[in-house]
Amino acid sequence: MEIAFLVFDGITPLDAIGPFDVLGRLPGAKVKFVGPQKGPARTMGGMCALYADYALDEVTAPDILVVPGGPGAGGISGPGLSVDPVVTGWVRDVHRKTQWTTSVCTGALILGGAGLLKGLRATTHWRAEKDLATFGAKPVHDRVVVEKQSRVITAAGVSSGIDMALRLADMVAGPDIAKAIQLQIEYDPEPPYDTGSILKAPPRLVEVARTLNRP
Amino acid sequence: MEIAFLVFDGITPLDAIGPFDVLGRLPGAKVKFVGPQKGPARTMGGMCALYADYALDEVTAPDILVVPGGPGAGGISGPGLSVDPVVTGWVRDVHRKTQWTTSVCTGALILGGAGLLKGLRATTHWRAEKDLATFGAKPVHDRVVVEKQSRVITAAGVSSGIDMALRLADMVAGPDIAKAIQLQIEYDPEPPYDTGSILKAPPRLVEVARTLNRP
Repeated sequence: MEIAFLVFDGITPLDAIGPFDVLGRLPGAKVKFVGPQKGPARTMGGMCALYADYALDEVTAPDILVVPGGPGAGGISGPGLSVDPVVTGWVRDVHRKTQWTTSVCTGALILGGAGLLKGLRATTHWRAEKDLATFGAKPVHDRVVVEKQSRVITAAGVSSGIDMALRLADMVAGPDIAKAIQLQIEYDPEPPYDTGSILKAPPRLVEVARTLNRP
Repeated sequence: MEIAFLVFDGITPLDAIGPFDVLGRLPGAKVKFVGPQKGPARTMGGMCALYADYALDEVTAPDILVVPGGPGAGGISGPGLSVDPVVTGWVRDVHRKTQWTTSVCTGALILGGAGLLKGLRATTHWRAEKDLATFGAKPVHDRVVVEKQSRVITAAGVSSGIDMALRLADMVAGPDIAKAIQLQIEYDPEPPYDTGSILKAPPRLVEVARTLNRP
């Protein structure tokens, strides 16, 4: 099973690596990190790099596509890749052949820019909900949204990609494998606070979050 | 605040990127990915690369050190870096100046190899508990273990690094910042199953987990 992860400058690394450390453990998984440029994709002010081993035209028919988000995808800091015709065209082409096309965080804006979300329920990072609507999607607050008929799954911000990937692992490999992967990555979360959702965090904290140095 | 992440061939990428996407958001964070070799550190059968921008001798006094785990650290697949004198010597030297020296997953074995866990309560991935004891640590099943006097924090397997990093963010920057980071990464987990801990998963699933293609 070929699984492609889009990587790009300004990616939020956990958007990609959360799902990767789940889906990469599927029996027979062959993962390809794909980017508009081959080589290191820089992010978080240049402090971190994920590595694209493949150019877009080298990956044409993955079974699963994961499109992570981040400032480079679009949203708060400008439209980013969501309006890049090369990238959105590639996503649109690849989607014709995938079993599942998925996004994490503002990766949903790239799916939107590719025209894949028209009329679909979809989720994204809480700061990008309005942007999502501009692509004809119906934004919802769920952590993971599965649009089965369209073969599209969207996940909310950053860490939600882990939950998305475990559900996807179940759909493609069955519950035993998904449960075993959850044990392998010891995913028995103990979040220290109850502030991980915009529906739960008090307004004062939302303002702190908006002013932190990384969007 | 300088924060060093050790990266190496055979790292489990989520061990590093989970905490990075928390600690990298701290105001004033300056993160350095440090490795025994500069450049891409390959893992998961070569499918994924994290990028070491710094050699060990270029990072001598970080405020926080994060040591991730993975097959390259030691444990199931052999002793790995936990018996590498260059790496363990660097960890031991750096620890003298850190505010906090931390590990995720089998990164604890590298701390152990550096002699930092003698007599301390510590945690690691469930498959490496026995290895941890060989370094004089007292293995416990907690998800995050803080040994305040020794300035050492260990976290359990893979995804536990996110919980560890949020608690650490609180200790170094206060609860408001930690809570806001939890909102930024939308960490409001919805694990699909209750199999994320060795204390909860049925024996049959533990066997499935042991036989999956990625350790």
